[in-house]
Amino acid sequence: MAENKKVAVIMGSDSDLPVVKDAITKLKSFGIEVEARVMSAHRTPHEACEFASNAKKNGFGVIIAAAGKAAHLGGVLAAHTTLPVIGIPIKSSTLDGLDALLATVQMPSGIPVATVAINGAENAAILAIQMLALSNADLAEKLETMKTDMAKAVNAKDEKLQQMVAEL
Amino acid sequence: MAENKKVAVIMGSDSDLPVVKDAITKLKSFGIEVEARVMSAHRTPHEACEFASNAKKNGFGVIIAAAGKAAHLGGVLAAHTTLPVIGIPIKSSTLDGLDALLATVQMPSGIPVATVAINGAENAAILAIQMLALSNADLAEKLETMKTDMAKAVNAKDEKLQQMVAEL
Amino acid sequence: MAENKKVAVIMGSDSDLPVVKDAITKLKSFGIEVEARVMSAHRTPHEACEFASNAKKNGFGVIIAAAGKAAHLGGVLAAHTTLPVIGIPIKSSTLDGLDALLATVQMPSGIPVATVAINGAENAAILAIQMLALSNADLAEKLETMKTDMAKAVNAKDEKLQQMVAEL
Amino acid sequence: MAENKKVAVIMGSDSDLPVVKDAITKLKSFGIEVEARVMSAHRTPHEACEFASNAKKNGFGVIIAAAGKAAHLGGVLAAHTTLPVIGIPIKSSTLDGLDALLATVQMPSGIPVATVAINGAENAAILAIQMLALSNADLAEKLETMKTDMAKAVNAKDEKLQQMVAEL
Amino acid sequence: MAENKKVAVIMGSDSDLPVVKDAITKLKSFGIEVEARVMSAHRTPHEACEFASNAKKNGFGVIIAAAGKAAHLGGVLAAHTTLPVIGIPIKSSTLDGLDALLATVQMPSGIPVATVAINGAENAAILAIQMLALSNADLAEKLETMKTDMAKAVNAKDEKLQQMVAEL
Amino acid sequence: MAENKKVAVIMGSDSDLPVVKDAITKLKSFGIEVEARVMSAHRTPHEACEFASNAKKNGFGVIIAAAGKAAHLGGVLAAHTTLPVIGIPIKSSTLDGLDALLATVQMPSGIPVATVAINGAENAAILAIQMLALSNADLAEKLETMKTDMAKAVNAKDEKLQQMVAEL
Amino acid sequence: MAENKKVAVIMGSDSDLPVVKDAITKLKSFGIEVEARVMSAHRTPHEACEFASNAKKNGFGVIIAAAGKAAHLGGVLAAHTTLPVIGIPIKSSTLDGLDALLATVQMPSGIPVATVAINGAENAAILAIQMLALSNADLAEKLETMKTDMAKAVNAKDEKLQQMVAEL
Amino acid sequence: MAENKKVAVIMGSDSDLPVVKDAITKLKSFGIEVEARVMSAHRTPHEACEFASNAKKNGFGVIIAAAGKAAHLGGVLAAHTTLPVIGIPIKSSTLDGLDALLATVQMPSGIPVATVAINGAENAAILAIQMLALSNADLAEKLETMKTDMAKAVNAKDEKLQQMVAEL
Repeated sequence: MAENKKVAVIMGSDSDLPVVKDAITKLKSFGIEVEARVMSAHRTPHEACEFASNAKKNGFGVIIAAAGKAAHLGGVLAAHTTLPVIGIPIKSSTLDGLDALLATVQMPSGIPVATVAINGAENAAILAIQMLALSNADLAEKLETMKTDMAKAVNAKDEKLQQMVAEL
Repeated sequence: MAENKKVAVIMGSDSDLPVVKDAITKLKSFGIEVEARVMSAHRTPHEACEFASNAKKNGFGVIIAAAGKAAHLGGVLAAHTTLPVIGIPIKSSTLDGLDALLATVQMPSGIPVATVAINGAENAAILAIQMLALSNADLAEKLETMKTDMAKAVNAKDEKLQQMVAEL
Repeated sequence: MAENKKVAVIMGSDSDLPVVKDAITKLKSFGIEVEARVMSAHRTPHEACEFASNAKKNGFGVIIAAAGKAAHLGGVLAAHTTLPVIGIPIKSSTLDGLDALLATVQMPSGIPVATVAINGAENAAILAIQMLALSNADLAEKLETMKTDMAKAVNAKDEKLQQMVAEL
Repeated sequence: MAENKKVAVIMGSDSDLPVVKDAITKLKSFGIEVEARVMSAHRTPHEACEFASNAKKNGFGVIIAAAGKAAHLGGVLAAHTTLPVIGIPIKSSTLDGLDALLATVQMPSGIPVATVAINGAENAAILAIQMLALSNADLAEKLETMKTDMAKAVNAKDEKLQQMVAEL
Repeated sequence: MAENKKVAVIMGSDSDLPVVKDAITKLKSFGIEVEARVMSAHRTPHEACEFASNAKKNGFGVIIAAAGKAAHLGGVLAAHTTLPVIGIPIKSSTLDGLDALLATVQMPSGIPVATVAINGAENAAILAIQMLALSNADLAEKLETMKTDMAKAVNAKDEKLQQMVAEL
Repeated sequence: MAENKKVAVIMGSDSDLPVVKDAITKLKSFGIEVEARVMSAHRTPHEACEFASNAKKNGFGVIIAAAGKAAHLGGVLAAHTTLPVIGIPIKSSTLDGLDALLATVQMPSGIPVATVAINGAENAAILAIQMLALSNADLAEKLETMKTDMAKAVNAKDEKLQQMVAEL
Repeated sequence: MAENKKVAVIMGSDSDLPVVKDAITKLKSFGIEVEARVMSAHRTPHEACEFASNAKKNGFGVIIAAAGKAAHLGGVLAAHTTLPVIGIPIKSSTLDGLDALLATVQMPSGIPVATVAINGAENAAILAIQMLALSNADLAEKLETMKTDMAKAVNAKDEKLQQMVAEL
Repeated sequence: MAENKKVAVIMGSDSDLPVVKDAITKLKSFGIEVEARVMSAHRTPHEACEFASNAKKNGFGVIIAAAGKAAHLGGVLAAHTTLPVIGIPIKSSTLDGLDALLATVQMPSGIPVATVAINGAENAAILAIQMLALSNADLAEKLETMKTDMAKAVNAKDEKLQQMVAEL
């Protein structure tokens, strides 16, 4: 049963936390146990490889990896596990995140990284939940509710906008 | 149980088949039931929406969407389901697939599309299998075998190369 | 007669309003009835499809769609109507609007989206007016006046500049 | 009445014809009178300005402009008319059409060019027809038929693909 | 004799003045008569064409054109004169000036625009002076002096830096 | 008098000749004396610096520099002369010439390189002729003739196209 | 013996110092003698060529070159020495450093510039130290210590993050 | 003494050999012992980590890593050694090598990869030789000879070109 599977949220640097925390919060709001870690594909490669190698037997179902610039973290983790790895390209001080996007998504055949939008932490969490929900009816139902709520929120904004514009 | 879950492989145009068939073949080699379809976010939007809306209750676990240019297919399908949707950006005649990549990956908060490399059909399949393997020990084991075989293949090439280079 | 045709201004998020309101204001200044809405290709796809499907019979002549990132809104609306759809790519927090531009303009054969510049809301409105003016002599005349006024404004700035520069 | 309005298809170079002829053919298939011309914003600017200035009184409803590289043609024509101008960015020998796309679409406020995809000649024609159809019920009906046919064609390909894939 | 030849500095919008004034100041510092104008390829095309057509007989030697976004100004002016036209691509609110650069530099065969760096106003002036200096020994000498002074200034900064770094 | 001034056409590699010869031919067709050289900013920097340093006193009026990839040739030559230097960015095996364009055009203040389109050899020649024509009435007249001929050629193609299209 | 070899840190402009000083500090912290200079490939080319030509006999082992825009400095220095040259592309006011990156890294065969990340001054220093460490066991040992310390620092941040997240 | 130090040339896939063999050949022509290997950061990560971790004690001085797409190989090797690592970004079927360039060069502080041009295998070899030459006077001399020969070759081409052009 996938219900008890945890999600790992690994970030390449603690400076990524302001972006990445949206993923952590979202996962927790679905009742999913999260382990958040700072591990670097380049500065603490042993820890990263170790973590990925043991993730499955340690009860993880999905690994989320957030990194900027030459963002190798997702790929390095994916190299050491058969669990699905989700990559969040982080925008850093130059190139607007394009470097991180390409370094995350353009993986060679055999080792996919499921890439979301630049800084798309919330979507990384939702994607992880969708994966876990494949064998967890409760999560699946919560996702449906979230989808409905999201639509309602847009509809509410739509109504408000119509009033605002009528008064323009 | 996820074992019986099917994977849908939707392509925006039948001209995408030469690329996308790698996904179909890979999925079948893992014993996964595949339904391959041509549906266009723009030319047959009703079919696409209908398909996505009913995918879960029709026994699908994952949807793979392949499209080029302003590649909306993944996003449109994801809008109508809570199943995980994997997007394959297809390289077309201009811009080298960058348009399809950005149109697939840069999804707004709430509706992720798990994006793989441009023309990365095989990885889309592996990612789908990884998701299904979360609740299917047999698939998980096959993934481990595939990973080991992949390493062996690289090692074999490594040996061959060393011989070739020695003779240079 | 096209005179009574309305223009719909759909934005993917209410956060687009600061940019999009230039379109609304411009259309109103030409005496055109505007309906401004928040609808998302991804979060409220049913509303968006419904709106586009019925736009023609509900008296709309042109639909303007503004969206950022993987900007599918224009394409999704265009998929459900034969009315001309104008797309405004919105610049968001990364990639400077290039993602939205490509996702809006690179439409496949059969379903055009008339794309204007990134954040080019005013031009979207003018383009809509030009379309309606094809069968509305009054609007056509107002466009000529606008063009003349625009030239006069530039000429006035030209004179002012010449004075300023002379004093440099 | 818009029925009699002609569409001008202007290309910056006769070498653009292989791409642009799709626009001409599509327009003619809808029974629209087309005038196709070679005019260059840079080599025959007088002819281009003259043409645009007189297009409305000469019975044109829409101008389609196709050009590559620093594609100024659409903008230059739009500067001299209040008719809607549609721009087709043409891919040339370098930069994959990105130069033509940006030079066509990034117009300043006041002078829109309705831009379609790189080499998107057929869509330029459909967009022009959509504009004329605003006051021409016959064209509007033909557009609906085209849309239905397009969906049927995709559905036919879909069926064929399902057979092919079943046999894989 | 070229000595009396004036340089025109045309900008597409008065908002370009903060950048463009560096060109004006530099030209004046070399004793060159400058006429600075606001003319738009799109909003005041007649004025722009007229100006370029008559520039040579009105005593101009070089035209500098500064414009942003779909920067057609340089090309449009060059289309109407055989004088050398220098283009300054102006960085605007999106795309960091890449659109203006490509729209200025990628001119078709027959109509060159001598393009300088994005926002490179000072270099546009120096380039114009280099052209005029071809037949004006006084200007040529001043350019040599400027080059020497520039080197001296860098050398002075070099010495200062060495002191600063020694103290680090 | 500028009449006797020669134009240097320097290319970074003899492999650039197929592109660059258009510049040489065009210059010769105007009766201008050309010296074509292979010099590399990186492999024969002494020759390049020497050439540029002495170009003026050796009777050159303009230097054209063609180079690909990290195209430093124009900048290096410009660093050693006050003559106008025209840069032709050459498209090489990757990046479609964008690297050469940026490396040529983005010069720092003080040292302009007049950049033409990627592979724009003919325009480099025309630009050089326009510079020399500032003090050479004969060249100026030939440029006017070329411009007229160019327009005629386009007009001829225009007529031919109209016939072709009528027969479609 | 390489122990006494100095490292030159050349910047194209003193405005690069805020970025480049990280390289100087890092080198000094390893006990390496640094000579920091402002030299411009374009404004003081003689100084730059001279410096590079004599660098080896003046006791330098590595040259670090930092420059923005059309960043020719690394290439120009490399053209005059057989010492390894490390290039730091500096981000300037437009194009986010992409111009400097391409102008630094895309060197033609024969003259490499070892390029680090945009604004990657610290890494340029470390790379220089790695080169010198090839024949200096003391430096090699310090590099190992630095690597260990770096891992410890990340591990410390990892622990801190886990606490923070636990409290979310 | 560095004289005996070997250079490792690691490629991510044996399909990279046609490009990478230029590095191997060049290194051998300088009498350097080369070990060429196929190792993948993603498919054989253990082998890659192992190799890098032991490279120094196994007698290597420099590691050259060639990889395409999301090119993590250089970074992964650099994470496990303090030897200098040189990265060759390999152009693959899409994006013209830009993905590999950014994934190789944009390394975070602490772990540099000395990046050469896309497909710049020969320069990777020369750079490695330059590093080894810091403590090997024989290699240093050979580099000087290579530089002189390179200049002679260009000069020979220069003479040949002048003849060819004279006959145009």
